[in-house]
Amino acid sequence: MKIGYVQTNPKRGKREQNLESALALLADVEADVLVLPELFSTGYLFADREELSKVAEPTDESPTIEWMKKVAADKGCVVCGGFPELDRDNNRIYNSAVIVSFVGPLVHYRKLHLFDQEKELFDAGEMPPKAANIGLGVAGIIICFDWIFPETMRMLALDDAQVVLHPSNLILPHCQQAMITRCIENRLFAVTANRVGSEELNEKKLTFTGHSQIVAPDGTVLKQAGAEGEEVGVVEIDPNQASDKMVTENNHLLKDRRVDVYESLLYTDKERQGRL
Amino acid sequence: MKIGYVQTNPKRGKREQNLESALALLADVEADVLVLPELFSTGYLFADREELSKVAEPTDESPTIEWMKKVAADKGCVVCGGFPELDRDNNRIYNSAVIVSFVGPLVHYRKLHLFDQEKELFDAGEMPPKAANIGLGVAGIIICFDWIFPETMRMLALDDAQVVLHPSNLILPHCQQAMITRCIENRLFAVTANRVGSEELNEKKLTFTGHSQIVAPDGTVLKQAGAEGEEVGVVEIDPNQASDKMVTENNHLLKDRRVDVYESLLYTDKERQGRL
Repeated sequence: MKIGYVQTNPKRGKREQNLESALALLADVEADVLVLPELFSTGYLFADREELSKVAEPTDESPTIEWMKKVAADKGCVVCGGFPELDRDNNRIYNSAVIVSFVGPLVHYRKLHLFDQEKELFDAGEMPPKAANIGLGVAGIIICFDWIFPETMRMLALDDAQVVLHPSNLILPHCQQAMITRCIENRLFAVTANRVGSEELNEKKLTFTGHSQIVAPDGTVLKQAGAEGEEVGVVEIDPNQASDKMVTENNHLLKDRRVDVYESLLYTDKERQGRL
Repeated sequence: MKIGYVQTNPKRGKREQNLESALALLADVEADVLVLPELFSTGYLFADREELSKVAEPTDESPTIEWMKKVAADKGCVVCGGFPELDRDNNRIYNSAVIVSFVGPLVHYRKLHLFDQEKELFDAGEMPPKAANIGLGVAGIIICFDWIFPETMRMLALDDAQVVLHPSNLILPHCQQAMITRCIENRLFAVTANRVGSEELNEKKLTFTGHSQIVAPDGTVLKQAGAEGEEVGVVEIDPNQASDKMVTENNHLLKDRRVDVYESLLYTDKERQGRL
């Protein structure tokens, strides 16, 4: 499986331009799976929910998904990337990502752990991330800040994911290093597709950290992009390596989990306080 | 709170000698909390359960705990370290560690995730790790290979631990780096007290990786020992820093956890297979 990140520099609100320059980056790229950043077609910073709602896309009428389908068809691959998802029926907007074949989405995920002011703009997802067969392996999605919660990728490992696709708009400096731990503790592959550049809004300026990367189940960084600049990186992996969960002859990383004593992991904050 | 690791090189089966040389290392050390390695008084490799049972200690008649109490009294501190614990009533032997004041154990933990051939020698613990007030802060214990399961330290964070004491006999190369992620994802301090040297038994030779370390809630490595040689490292920390779980103005690391969708984390392997 040839898998790659597409590190882009989206301009806020300029969907057409963002999709065009992403396409230009892909001109000579051959891959089976390509991962683009979180919100790669719309940019990241929005003044308020109203402004966000103007670029939000229903999944069945999404210019971003249509573009991804076309790329998938033209290149004979599957494409993963993020977009602001409008759920018209329930008046919700999610920070979502999909894995798309030329037919349509194979995996659909709504970000569970919203970062900072995303909480004022987006609704948080209500479902755990799910893994699915995407043709050459089993893959699932986490989005950006989900990385800091080990529970997110753990759920995908428990759902038999071999490869975790991780569209991101990273600002904090710790993620790239932490993803090595995430891969080791779950023994799976991860592709972090981060963006570069900055966005400004009122007094606020965010600079994104680049360094998109692909990590192997043993923690090896197979490929890493620079801190600045648009860039595509592709490596060949064998996703079946991720199905071997033996750390030693006697230690299976998932079967050794002690679910019989992990009960407190599911206590609500209130239940937790009640126990003190 | 002055907290430190004591990196030692135990000789197998020579308890008296191991305790003496640990004491010699502490001659000029001032600290409030000192952490020694896993099984620091007995060494690590045992041919079989029978050999192990000869050095296993009941908690109420433990030469290792008595030594720790004396060090605690003499130095006016608390002492943490590991020992093979004999539970006579149930004919069990645990890979245990305690945090001891001059009066006796304040925290007692039996290793949950046994590494490799430890499974043939020890019984695994049946209780989650618990945090307790040890005088100047709230602390809990994980032991060595527990590091690879994010659940272990997470349970301590959810039990309001500020500092995790981590007696170890590390062989794999990934732990020291991963503990940085563990501290960031839980925002707490961790002291890994690893051993150095080698042990041989029949065809088997294990070399321990040293690099004991103290990590802050923001991932900073405050102090790290060398790969070889006995060594004590002490730093002053403010454990209350670990009570601030805000990563941004809007993100509380524990309250942001989505226990409403984490259900699959507690599925047994059988339940998990049943769902496929």
